[in-house]
Amino acid sequence: MRSLHTALVHYPILDAQGGIVTTAITNLDVHDIARSSKSYGCESYFLIHPVSAQRELVERIQGHWREGASAKRIPDRKTALAIARVVPSLEAMFDSFGGRSGVELWATSARKEGMTITTYAEARTMLEGEGKPVCMLFGTGWGMPRSILDACDRLLEPIASHASDYNHLSVRAAAAITLDRLFGDG
Amino acid sequence: MRSLHTALVHYPILDAQGGIVTTAITNLDVHDIARSSKSYGCESYFLIHPVSAQRELVERIQGHWREGASAKRIPDRKTALAIARVVPSLEAMFDSFGGRSGVELWATSARKEGMTITTYAEARTMLEGEGKPVCMLFGTGWGMPRSILDACDRLLEPIASHASDYNHLSVRAAAAITLDRLFGDG
Repeated sequence: MRSLHTALVHYPILDAQGGIVTTAITNLDVHDIARSSKSYGCESYFLIHPVSAQRELVERIQGHWREGASAKRIPDRKTALAIARVVPSLEAMFDSFGGRSGVELWATSARKEGMTITTYAEARTMLEGEGKPVCMLFGTGWGMPRSILDACDRLLEPIASHASDYNHLSVRAAAAITLDRLFGDG
Repeated sequence: MRSLHTALVHYPILDAQGGIVTTAITNLDVHDIARSSKSYGCESYFLIHPVSAQRELVERIQGHWREGASAKRIPDRKTALAIARVVPSLEAMFDSFGGRSGVELWATSARKEGMTITTYAEARTMLEGEGKPVCMLFGTGWGMPRSILDACDRLLEPIASHASDYNHLSVRAAAAITLDRLFGDG
């Protein structure tokens, strides 16, 4: 089985008008996606943010749950937050894998001309085999720009339901669902 | 296809020591579970809370996204929050279905002696057919007490992954995954 990692991108990110922005760290993104990542066997959860004060915020949250009063109240949380790793850029994340060639980048994307989309059934089979670690990228804000999707090695089909045309999941929900589709027993 | 509804229970709820408590409304529970519910075609998302000041908080959040500055910034959010309904108790929720017999209550549960557990494959088939509306209950805090599980018409298997023994999903993640397993295209 290949090792799976998650990453939450805060820059470069699209805003509502299609411009490129940096989004702020959200406390519950740290907690929820760390808990989901750990529950589906991910080895690390990267929070990618170019601003050092924002990276320090994540480290303070981790410290609070590792050593603070909350560590006693909910000891399980420490285990999830321990896999969270804060890095300034995608390039810095690649260093953890020995460089860009040491990891496969995956993301979900709406189907666009000229792009091959992988189904979740195909992706599950790929993860069961041997190969490089896989890092599943998730975007904050209005999602990741084309430049990041173009840099991915594989694009998975977007999450959808036959029961609704409305499709505006939070990134916390989208990450949980993606992990369940890749590694869940359902 | 049967109609699906979600409900988030804030009382009676278990605390870490197994006692019965009332939990506080969390802003992102309102948003995330409304967005997930709407994205999977649910007709309503009930927030069950016995304290009127907490119920008013949900109504203020809804108003802010229906009429406030945020309504212009993210118009899609209004559509999701419009299905949120705040009620003081399970009994008050039953009234929306013409009484207890007008709805089937479902929840997830770890397998316990003397209980029949439904798989997600079975549940999907049940939802495709004809029948009463189904309301999927989710618990805050440390989960719902046995008294609520005993009152359910059907218990689904707990969410699990073969990739991990750690299993501490947020309720926002658990709700998203459950809806995807019931109505997703994955």
